[in-house]
Amino acid sequence: MKNLDFLFTPKQIAVIGASKSPQKIGYAIIDNIIKSGYQGKVYPVNPKEKEIAGLKCYPAIGEIPEKVDLAVLSVPAHVTLKAAQECGEAGVKGLIVITAGFKEVGGEGLKKEKELLNVCRRYNMRMIGPNCVGLMDTHTPLNASFARGFPEKGSISFISQSGAMLLSILDWSFSRGLGYSRFISLGNKADLNEIDFIESCAKDPNTKVILCYIEDVTDGDRFVKVCAEACKLKPIIILKSGTSAAGAQAASSHTGALAGSNRAYDTAFHQSGVLRVSDMNDLFDLASAFATQPLPAGDRVAIVTNAGGAAIVATDTVEKYGLQMARFSKETIDKLRENLPAESNIYNPVDILGDAREERYRFALEQVLQDENVDNVLVLLCPTAVIEPEKTAKTIIEMKNAYPQKPIFAVYMGGQALAGGRNILIQEAVPTFTFPEPAVRAVQGLVRYANFKKHRTTAKPVQLKGLDQNAVKATFYDALKDRRLALLGYEASRVMEAYGIPISKIELATTAAEAQAISEKMGYPVVLKISSPRIAHKTDVGGVEIGLHDSKAVAKAFERIMDRVKHHLPDAPIYGVEVQKMVDEGVEVIIGISRDVQFGHLVVFGLGGIYVNLFEDVSFRLASALTTREAVLEMISETKAYSLLKGYRGKKPADMDALIDAILRTARLARDFKEITEMDINPLRVHHRGATALDVKITIEQAGL
Amino acid sequence: MKNLDFLFTPKQIAVIGASKSPQKIGYAIIDNIIKSGYQGKVYPVNPKEKEIAGLKCYPAIGEIPEKVDLAVLSVPAHVTLKAAQECGEAGVKGLIVITAGFKEVGGEGLKKEKELLNVCRRYNMRMIGPNCVGLMDTHTPLNASFARGFPEKGSISFISQSGAMLLSILDWSFSRGLGYSRFISLGNKADLNEIDFIESCAKDPNTKVILCYIEDVTDGDRFVKVCAEACKLKPIIILKSGTSAAGAQAASSHTGALAGSNRAYDTAFHQSGVLRVSDMNDLFDLASAFATQPLPAGDRVAIVTNAGGAAIVATDTVEKYGLQMARFSKETIDKLRENLPAESNIYNPVDILGDAREERYRFALEQVLQDENVDNVLVLLCPTAVIEPEKTAKTIIEMKNAYPQKPIFAVYMGGQALAGGRNILIQEAVPTFTFPEPAVRAVQGLVRYANFKKHRTTAKPVQLKGLDQNAVKATFYDALKDRRLALLGYEASRVMEAYGIPISKIELATTAAEAQAISEKMGYPVVLKISSPRIAHKTDVGGVEIGLHDSKAVAKAFERIMDRVKHHLPDAPIYGVEVQKMVDEGVEVIIGISRDVQFGHLVVFGLGGIYVNLFEDVSFRLASALTTREAVLEMISETKAYSLLKGYRGKKPADMDALIDAILRTARLARDFKEITEMDINPLRVHHRGATALDVKITIEQAGL
Repeated sequence: MKNLDFLFTPKQIAVIGASKSPQKIGYAIIDNIIKSGYQGKVYPVNPKEKEIAGLKCYPAIGEIPEKVDLAVLSVPAHVTLKAAQECGEAGVKGLIVITAGFKEVGGEGLKKEKELLNVCRRYNMRMIGPNCVGLMDTHTPLNASFARGFPEKGSISFISQSGAMLLSILDWSFSRGLGYSRFISLGNKADLNEIDFIESCAKDPNTKVILCYIEDVTDGDRFVKVCAEACKLKPIIILKSGTSAAGAQAASSHTGALAGSNRAYDTAFHQSGVLRVSDMNDLFDLASAFATQPLPAGDRVAIVTNAGGAAIVATDTVEKYGLQMARFSKETIDKLRENLPAESNIYNPVDILGDAREERYRFALEQVLQDENVDNVLVLLCPTAVIEPEKTAKTIIEMKNAYPQKPIFAVYMGGQALAGGRNILIQEAVPTFTFPEPAVRAVQGLVRYANFKKHRTTAKPVQLKGLDQNAVKATFYDALKDRRLALLGYEASRVMEAYGIPISKIELATTAAEAQAISEKMGYPVVLKISSPRIAHKTDVGGVEIGLHDSKAVAKAFERIMDRVKHHLPDAPIYGVEVQKMVDEGVEVIIGISRDVQFGHLVVFGLGGIYVNLFEDVSFRLASALTTREAVLEMISETKAYSLLKGYRGKKPADMDALIDAILRTARLARDFKEITEMDINPLRVHHRGATALDVKITIEQAGL
Repeated sequence: MKNLDFLFTPKQIAVIGASKSPQKIGYAIIDNIIKSGYQGKVYPVNPKEKEIAGLKCYPAIGEIPEKVDLAVLSVPAHVTLKAAQECGEAGVKGLIVITAGFKEVGGEGLKKEKELLNVCRRYNMRMIGPNCVGLMDTHTPLNASFARGFPEKGSISFISQSGAMLLSILDWSFSRGLGYSRFISLGNKADLNEIDFIESCAKDPNTKVILCYIEDVTDGDRFVKVCAEACKLKPIIILKSGTSAAGAQAASSHTGALAGSNRAYDTAFHQSGVLRVSDMNDLFDLASAFATQPLPAGDRVAIVTNAGGAAIVATDTVEKYGLQMARFSKETIDKLRENLPAESNIYNPVDILGDAREERYRFALEQVLQDENVDNVLVLLCPTAVIEPEKTAKTIIEMKNAYPQKPIFAVYMGGQALAGGRNILIQEAVPTFTFPEPAVRAVQGLVRYANFKKHRTTAKPVQLKGLDQNAVKATFYDALKDRRLALLGYEASRVMEAYGIPISKIELATTAAEAQAISEKMGYPVVLKISSPRIAHKTDVGGVEIGLHDSKAVAKAFERIMDRVKHHLPDAPIYGVEVQKMVDEGVEVIIGISRDVQFGHLVVFGLGGIYVNLFEDVSFRLASALTTREAVLEMISETKAYSLLKGYRGKKPADMDALIDAILRTARLARDFKEITEMDINPLRVHHRGATALDVKITIEQAGL
């Protein structure tokens, strides 16, 4: 990716469509650039004006005496193309196209947007928008947008696919005391998109945390790759809207974006280390936590409080969000016992009672902060008669500075009486809340990201042996030649064998004698199933016989199946009868593949059998991620099936190695054959030794043109 | 329950321990009473003073020339008892004991609290506290507490088991613009408790919604009865803390309260119509919704927005919380199409675009409000260039008044630019939020309560026939005589039969011949199980043989079992071998009973078999509630087992009547026999016709003294 510095720290900016009229966007942009304190050169362009805001105005970009890095376009839609072309000819590196009326209006707009993109490509210009608000960088400083106001300098970058959302957040942030490094409005994402800016912000030394509001992802593969790298450097927190069926509809009618499935997004975010939130408040609570606090060493939380009730609520929330209440060392407990009033609770939560003043907070905080068993600290303060909220706030800040490796959060439970203290805390970068719940959620966010960084696997990809790609291709080819996209049972069986995924082999018999010979070779009991491209529900037409224990039974069953099927469906083409050895023993699991439009192949694992859809006890991964034993084991361990596999209620444990191998091979199959649209191995029976697939369905897409 | 008016609208108040020193609580109370504008008579009592705050001070309550309704005690703990006694002798009706140092400190404090309660009982006084902040009623008006400040008059009553939480909320409410009717601090709940005040607030004409923060419930049965009645009149919203294991520990160390299990609380709240929240913000968001909005006719939500992104987030949230996006009538859609700009979204969410001014909001709001398919309206406003937040706020208020039957919520997404409009909305009782999520949660709260009121069952209790209580008693008696609390298989079988719960009968055979005779009578196949009070895990000692198909097999199995058990456990008392017919067919479910310390018997229903604990696919009800078919059916339908029972994947549906009957009878058994501590029917196999219990475990408690 090209460096995007020319967008954030341009040496010259031209504003095409600059205006003298304060109602016009072309005025707001010039005004914002100047007021933001931008130190480079600003060139208004408007053929009707000689001078705007005290700056010389040029009739066209080509008339400006030097090359300009960045041009902001705010001209009517029908002249945008021409203006962009002139920028290209003048050697502009970056365009911000504010103008609307492109893809978002559909039809002709879509065409115009493509032409605009072509112009950019031709002149090697990069473009933000069209239909965007612009961008800001508080460190340059530069406000190249038409938004009202400029945020305080800080370390949060906010990337938004919705212009209005950006305006909302900007306005709201003034009252919240959060500082930002960059605001970026993506608009229609014709050229530059969220991935480009995530990559750019990851490299930006002034950005500590990246926030995104997005409605879709432009390129799933690249998104995962870029985010996985960026997350090694700094946290990315994303609110991805359009999760509901109705929301997705609103999303696509809004931006014309094709929404990937919500599950695929979850999987991709999880995998790349992105923290996903579903609530705007969470987005900013997490942002302020990351912007101001160190990453905790673990998930153990200590609470210091002057009110028992508040502490109980906080403790409930700690458990609800999967964090641990810290257990103090004996030294800490002894010190607390010796120095706090007798009625205090000296265990966690530390209740220093309603008559606690600043010095008691100081003492308790110091004890818990220096305890090695404490990773995070929550300070609760209720407005009892004797509180000293400002003094206590200063003490909290002092403690934060004395123990810079442990995150500390304040919950000032009240309004007017605590406002002074709260302001002091926020000024000095202590995230401060009115109630415990959002504070605990913020801690959880820090812990999640810290865990992601800690557990970044260094495991080596497993080298799989015995993969016969040609055998798979040959099978797919046969199916296509037969004008089928759904493989027959014995074909799916061949694919499994070609990739070394253990299956109770399915063989096709065209006569009763052949079925007998196959059965003898396989061993009993066997199951017989009709094989026909036209019969999906084999049981319904009497096409299945199970529990056949000897050769005679096989022959009889063969004839009965043929008779019944011919009776029910006289015209269906019959390929024969599939023979398979029955396997009862083992834990029933499912391994599946589905293909998402944005992120490609997803592998699913979970409890198998007929209740798959009832219990939905499944976990998902992108096929691209399933290359190590560790990744597969983590995936398995997220399901309840894992409990069964480990040996539920006294049963022998199942063969985890065989299962992991089967999942690794399935993922590899997905990676090697993008043309697989769906695959279900259900059930795979995992035995105490080994595993056996019993039923496999594979669907591929049409090859060629 | 006695009327508690003398607490909220007393004609005279004495303050025992009144003080002239502004640092003292005894000063704050007098000061608060006067400043609140209380119109009755106030009598300070303090032997050391002649006059306090301009009022004549009395040396003792007995010296006051008239009887007083209410006395507030703020004297040292060691003289509280004497002071209370004097109040009793002087004919005081109600006491508020502010003084701490009772149950909450344990030991001697516990004893002192009991004595204090005895004094109240003796003189027929009711008491709040001890260890409380006091109470307020804004309509009387009266502030009989030591809290700083007095809330605005309104219709929310807040009952708090934590004094500090009450102080927090009071202080916070000043900045939030919420009006209250009553604030009640429960303290240690020695006499009056949350149930008394819920009952009292339900009758209070000035209260529209009751909020509670509680850490435990004093009397489970009465709580459910009172809340179920109160919820018919007005909503009750409760934050019950101590949900986590750690939180419950903190709760009981805090108040010495014995916490009922979280599941039992959930069940009891659900059953009585109480809305439970887990977050302080939700508590007050819901309160303001109920205080200001009508109950919606349904769950269909219309959204009007000037920004697509915000609408997508809101739409996601609507789905997340189980609400419906309204589908407009053709008339509405036509009108929107005709009158809004072409790029608008005229379906729900209605996107009136970023250049929308007040009149476009007015038009769109009017259309959706008059649409019969719309029950609730959400107005979103982002700070785009042309917004008119104040004017739009006034329009929203106008619409609220014009369509008083439909709840309307505003989401003003921003800070400074929208502050003016937000204030107008809050002043005129339109709940207003910064982000969509809490607004949608508030709508969901209204819908939940409206549904509760609507679906209040009028169904008739089922009259169960053929209940043989004596047979049950006889069985329990036999077990107790045998010094057992866990019933043996054939005993449990008898209990089931006595209450008409279908079971594959278990009979005890003491000889092989007897086992053969029983089997012949029952029909094959049968299972044999060793019967001994000392053998819990029968399989482990070879005490079980299954799949016995004829008389010979039964005789042999009998001998083998006896041999093996005698070999393994030569000293165990053997009662014989239990014989039971095997039943394979049907859906495996569990019906169980457990007993909660607060709420009594809970009945559980769910997916049965060995995976009960793995999947936890269960629903709970208080046994007291399971008297109607409708209640049982609702309970069943909350589980995934319901899908199986209805006929999963082509199977025949199971006999719902038989299952409902079995659950009704189990609940009745629980109600009739409080001594049952645990009961598990697992599995009960529900067939296409009928149902059969296969394994039943019953544990009872020691009878007598």
